[in-house]
Amino acid sequence: MKNKEIPKGLRDFLPEEVKARRKMEQKALKLFRSYGYEEVATPTFEYLEVIEAGTGRNSWEELYLFIDREGRILSLRPEMTVAIARMAATHLREAVFPQRLCYIANVFRHVQPQEAQYREFWQMGIELLGVSGARADAEVISIAVETLHAMGLDNFKISLNQIEIFNSLLADSGLAEEEKRLVRRLVENKDLVELGRVLNNTKIEDGLKEIIARLPVLHGGIEILDRLGPVEKNRRAAQAVAELSKVYEDLRAYGVNDHVVIDMGVLRGLDYYTGIVFEGYSSELGYGLLGGGRYDNLLQQYGFPCPATGFAIGMDRLALVLRGLDEEPARFLVGGADWNLVVKKAQELREQGYIVETDVQQCTREELAIKAEKMGNRRVVFV
Amino acid sequence: MKNKEIPKGLRDFLPEEVKARRKMEQKALKLFRSYGYEEVATPTFEYLEVIEAGTGRNSWEELYLFIDREGRILSLRPEMTVAIARMAATHLREAVFPQRLCYIANVFRHVQPQEAQYREFWQMGIELLGVSGARADAEVISIAVETLHAMGLDNFKISLNQIEIFNSLLADSGLAEEEKRLVRRLVENKDLVELGRVLNNTKIEDGLKEIIARLPVLHGGIEILDRLGPVEKNRRAAQAVAELSKVYEDLRAYGVNDHVVIDMGVLRGLDYYTGIVFEGYSSELGYGLLGGGRYDNLLQQYGFPCPATGFAIGMDRLALVLRGLDEEPARFLVGGADWNLVVKKAQELREQGYIVETDVQQCTREELAIKAEKMGNRRVVFV
Repeated sequence: MKNKEIPKGLRDFLPEEVKARRKMEQKALKLFRSYGYEEVATPTFEYLEVIEAGTGRNSWEELYLFIDREGRILSLRPEMTVAIARMAATHLREAVFPQRLCYIANVFRHVQPQEAQYREFWQMGIELLGVSGARADAEVISIAVETLHAMGLDNFKISLNQIEIFNSLLADSGLAEEEKRLVRRLVENKDLVELGRVLNNTKIEDGLKEIIARLPVLHGGIEILDRLGPVEKNRRAAQAVAELSKVYEDLRAYGVNDHVVIDMGVLRGLDYYTGIVFEGYSSELGYGLLGGGRYDNLLQQYGFPCPATGFAIGMDRLALVLRGLDEEPARFLVGGADWNLVVKKAQELREQGYIVETDVQQCTREELAIKAEKMGNRRVVFV
Repeated sequence: MKNKEIPKGLRDFLPEEVKARRKMEQKALKLFRSYGYEEVATPTFEYLEVIEAGTGRNSWEELYLFIDREGRILSLRPEMTVAIARMAATHLREAVFPQRLCYIANVFRHVQPQEAQYREFWQMGIELLGVSGARADAEVISIAVETLHAMGLDNFKISLNQIEIFNSLLADSGLAEEEKRLVRRLVENKDLVELGRVLNNTKIEDGLKEIIARLPVLHGGIEILDRLGPVEKNRRAAQAVAELSKVYEDLRAYGVNDHVVIDMGVLRGLDYYTGIVFEGYSSELGYGLLGGGRYDNLLQQYGFPCPATGFAIGMDRLALVLRGLDEEPARFLVGGADWNLVVKKAQELREQGYIVETDVQQCTREELAIKAEKMGNRRVVFV
């Protein structure tokens, strides 16, 4: 017997799993389309240098790399935002903006497999290209909320931040790049003890130090912006706070604020974010469902300066929620001695919307009944 | 400006192209499901040895290969039948048969790109597992015909053959493997002149030589089986002819015989076919649209002996046919000074089934009208 193993972190999807995925796709696409988003698709692999121009080299060790016959390095795509930025810079230079695009795609990362964390996994998302400002971010965030609602989730939160608050405070800090990365990680992980220790070993001015140390615990409604402390001296930080506040206010029109909390500890891993960032969590699941934000400098990496904002949802984690499937049409198993009649009857039933299998093994009436029983959930017609 | 090139033979799908593909998918899935086929999916890449166990080593040079971190060779999947055989042998050993499975998947081959021939391309297909005999083949072939009909194609033919006719005649010929491969290629390409020359240089017995030389021109209705010549001495060939005739007759129940011709020159490239084989052509397009056949020995390569038959359709070529797209719901562009009213109006319109974009740039009424005109095909609402 030959090997029939599949590589670690990959999987087969049996019918029930594909059905669950298709249902998610349909619900999401219907919603995205109702906001004017149109679906696009890109190649499964691209040149490494093209991907790196967008993502930076942070996640190099997670890429699936291979070499084409001309000796150039290719990578299976690790995410879709960079590919859509590259596509827009190629095909949409003359388009009328804003452009609203969406996708459903498999992406590939060499991570340690765990529950609902695969090496080939599915994402759906939207990108709103060509518009700066809070209203565009509010649209994208409210669609994220509506998508989770459409999937049947109610118990979830979107954590919202403006990444320039952290970045511009750190720019003022005088820290070296490596120290900044460490502080960033500690803020993201809400590791207050270690963060305090690290900050105390730096020469950051005391007022600023206090503000940075407070970031991980600033989590709640719009009122927590008042607890940030005095950032007026840092014009970029003050602007970022004002923008965060504006987005939160603009979200009220959509009636989604119950699901939105401001969380200064949300910094997002990817290099390309430049403004509003957000993440979605389900309290039932205990891990992240979606992530997104504004990336105003990404398209110019491909020669087409253009502001943009968007998000992606991980479908595998969502699938864990959607185990209860809807009703299917009734199933029939049609057999009989006269083949013409069997096929005719089957076609009639299909026209009525039923799922119909014909008995291609020429069973007797009794055999067919036994078979239908074994298969489960099928009505027998013997003509 | 950074590189934004994509690898040769790959492509981006803009909204119109994705729409066309989604439409094909929906029509095909609806049809497949009405016959009881259920969609499955498999990993985008697998171990090379697992793929080769199914396809043989014939098309090695078309595979996209890479190496995983444990040093094993991986391949992007070049087709789906082998993956589904491998999957069935893994997950469906205890299932009730027949199993009817279908898929829509991208596959990868390093071919020379040409019109509607890409290196990443999309296929949809069905596999009927667990049943020998003409009725199973007839079901699969009639679904192939119905699929092309459902796509809006009328002017097409399915060329039908039983590969054992050729294989068992060649087994009788005493030719060496390399000569057999040459004869096979010449029969497939209908190269009568060269075929005659090659056969005359062999020591094949004259009667058999005549039959083989005639294969490429045996093309037409069921009556052409009478023109094959005396194959009774070769029991396998005679059985294969009888089976071909039986499938043709069983197809009459489906009313699809107008589209079916018998063609003894259809041999299919892949090693795994063992019986009925068929290909679909559009006279409008001038090249193949689909291919399939019976592969009774493939699943036992994965330790699970099980007869099977199926087909795959190339979606890119079909897409060339489906350029005329159906109606879409009307599109609105909603703007105004009061953001709450704008969002409210937009949500009302979406609930009525329209596609609604809101003006996130706060244009005036005049600017909005100009913009809608530029975007084309959008009704403006200014609240």
